[in-house]
Amino acid sequence: MDFNLSKKGRRASPQPITYLMNKGASGDFVSLAAGLVDSQTLPAEEVGDLISKLLRERGHEPLQYGTNAGLASLREKVRSRVTNQDGTSADDIPLDRVVLSTGSQQMLYVLTEIMVDPGDIVITSAPSYFVYLGTLQMAGAKIVTVPSDRDGMRVDLLAEVLEQIKAAGQADRLKIVYATTYFQNPSGVSLSIERRKALLDAMASFGSMQPLVIEDAAYRELDFSGADKPSMWSFDKSGRRVAYLGTFSKPFSPGFRTGFAFLPEDLIEKVEIVKGNHDFGSANFNQHVIDAFLEHGLYDKHLSKLRETYRAKCLAMCEAIDRDLGESLSYVRPEGGLYVWGDLDDIDTGMESAFFKRCLEEGVLYVPGLLCYGRPESAPRSKLRLSFGPASVEEITEGIKRLSKAVSRAGVSR
Amino acid sequence: MDFNLSKKGRRASPQPITYLMNKGASGDFVSLAAGLVDSQTLPAEEVGDLISKLLRERGHEPLQYGTNAGLASLREKVRSRVTNQDGTSADDIPLDRVVLSTGSQQMLYVLTEIMVDPGDIVITSAPSYFVYLGTLQMAGAKIVTVPSDRDGMRVDLLAEVLEQIKAAGQADRLKIVYATTYFQNPSGVSLSIERRKALLDAMASFGSMQPLVIEDAAYRELDFSGADKPSMWSFDKSGRRVAYLGTFSKPFSPGFRTGFAFLPEDLIEKVEIVKGNHDFGSANFNQHVIDAFLEHGLYDKHLSKLRETYRAKCLAMCEAIDRDLGESLSYVRPEGGLYVWGDLDDIDTGMESAFFKRCLEEGVLYVPGLLCYGRPESAPRSKLRLSFGPASVEEITEGIKRLSKAVSRAGVSR
Repeated sequence: MDFNLSKKGRRASPQPITYLMNKGASGDFVSLAAGLVDSQTLPAEEVGDLISKLLRERGHEPLQYGTNAGLASLREKVRSRVTNQDGTSADDIPLDRVVLSTGSQQMLYVLTEIMVDPGDIVITSAPSYFVYLGTLQMAGAKIVTVPSDRDGMRVDLLAEVLEQIKAAGQADRLKIVYATTYFQNPSGVSLSIERRKALLDAMASFGSMQPLVIEDAAYRELDFSGADKPSMWSFDKSGRRVAYLGTFSKPFSPGFRTGFAFLPEDLIEKVEIVKGNHDFGSANFNQHVIDAFLEHGLYDKHLSKLRETYRAKCLAMCEAIDRDLGESLSYVRPEGGLYVWGDLDDIDTGMESAFFKRCLEEGVLYVPGLLCYGRPESAPRSKLRLSFGPASVEEITEGIKRLSKAVSRAGVSR
Repeated sequence: MDFNLSKKGRRASPQPITYLMNKGASGDFVSLAAGLVDSQTLPAEEVGDLISKLLRERGHEPLQYGTNAGLASLREKVRSRVTNQDGTSADDIPLDRVVLSTGSQQMLYVLTEIMVDPGDIVITSAPSYFVYLGTLQMAGAKIVTVPSDRDGMRVDLLAEVLEQIKAAGQADRLKIVYATTYFQNPSGVSLSIERRKALLDAMASFGSMQPLVIEDAAYRELDFSGADKPSMWSFDKSGRRVAYLGTFSKPFSPGFRTGFAFLPEDLIEKVEIVKGNHDFGSANFNQHVIDAFLEHGLYDKHLSKLRETYRAKCLAMCEAIDRDLGESLSYVRPEGGLYVWGDLDDIDTGMESAFFKRCLEEGVLYVPGLLCYGRPESAPRSKLRLSFGPASVEEITEGIKRLSKAVSRAGVSR
């Protein structure tokens, strides 16, 4: 390296998940590691017909530049949709506080840039979404973790952590509290209604310089039962604390890379400026396609098929686990999302472990749980994330069989 | 504002151009300010047919996630295309050094993040692309400018600036030299072949810790004559100094937000990591569409129509200027791109000026030249950018007429 990089450039370091993805793409493995969606569910045919119609109806407009905030008609639809899910009113949020992004990941990145200087504190649950942990590491954030259980982040322990931060005189360094509220990647669990409210209460009593609460709702619509919970955002009556992030990647198509956010008024101008410097707005064409997909009533039809597919694949995975792994692997059965979060008790699942190597030999990939902890040094070593997203039922069944063989061999060699 | 923002968040400040864009969109003005492309030229019909075919041929793949670097087949086509234009060989650059982005703007942003800490020096020509100046300001860069003439950046003066930086012991703080080599926004001029080579020579003798040279070639294919110059990148025989940035926004469609870069080997890993944290790759669907557009031979057909359209509109603008403004407005007739860069001699064109106000009254918008200088305090105040991109020939003619009225009134009130 003969360039003299910035501090951020020097902090940027490869994510271990890249190795897993490349392995998975090589075709020699059953990958239960990839967080992709099921290709067979992607609405290719509907989209083809729709785009022809769209271009006849809207002419050149979808091919021109859009705006930093994104297509107004799609932002309106998103607002109606989410407030409807929340049982509130679209009037609760002015349209200029709804902004589209390149997946929800880009909005996570932009908000982190706007809030976090190196050394600042960000609170995440343990485990947490590993891509965001990488973003935080690159931003130079100090990650503080709060344990979670089957109802999501332990908000009682969050309150303790907040007290410690205050006691250490670090209140002004706490910038973001990050919580995935629906079917978390990786744990599969949702934050309970009571805890959504309690989290906001804990923050309200924190002090005057308030951190931003990021509610990541990426998996909200992948709910097997179609039963839904009101968002944490809907409980923030001030409308000033919570950024609500959603995406069309999971429920529609990741190839369109379109996410959305409801933002606190105080951050809107900054987000639009930073977004403008990133790309002057995400792809306008894609926003028109999704807008038309919603407009023509295709979205909900698609979603109900999708929920059925993932429900069935999740069931297949859980049945295979119960049959082949029995009590060696404990897990909470997910009610939505794309992941089963397992615990192999006293088996170390890390990427350097003997067990991981045995899985490679058997031809199955998973995401080692250790990658999902902001503070790996104090994290459990026996967790793993199993994805039922891209794999077929046959591959899931075969993958769990291979995993069980690796576990048996672990038993022998223990 | 009751959030405690990061330093970068605090630096983020609104771009005056946003005001101009909003004014222009209000419909009461002839806008010669907007840097958009001509909507009538956008290949909506071709794209509609193409996408139906694409989805039949490629199935679900365009709707799935892509990769951080982008679609390999499009990267191959880009590599062939650019090396062919340069008269070199595709073998000159390994495919892993070609990366796709959300427009070329995103790559400018990512490279700046990787290279620049607050207080670091970036050299740009004067005038320069104002969106990038905003990005640099937000990054906390110290902008040092080098004057330009009708052959682009004055490389003889660049050499002097480099000497001054060395003499001040700041050599290790110089991180980027930014040069638009083709039909620069805003000046419309290209960097001459001799200066492309001389710029690289000047850098080669700079020292061991080398800054990155960014070659922005966004307007390369909007060449009215179809005559082309080899890129500066093609003269960098080491392959280690120059990042070459291109885009499909101008020659194809900005609604697809797809740009591309050839990167020095030493930066590839960092760019992919940072890009992964931004968005795990730009929209895959869009890359497939452009890939198919090139594959089916539609691109070059489209481009030759496009060149003819812009050539005619540029001519219309220049003729209107010569007729209505005569010697009051001096300019260099562009041979490509979307802009005429004019000089109104002793009239102040700034956004607070009497002349700008008179133009609003007459109903015409332009970009004040002052916005295009990294060091406005020492910049000329009489420049303006006139875009012939989105406006029709009739609007261009009318816009110049209105401008001439404002100039006459300036003459009266002088």
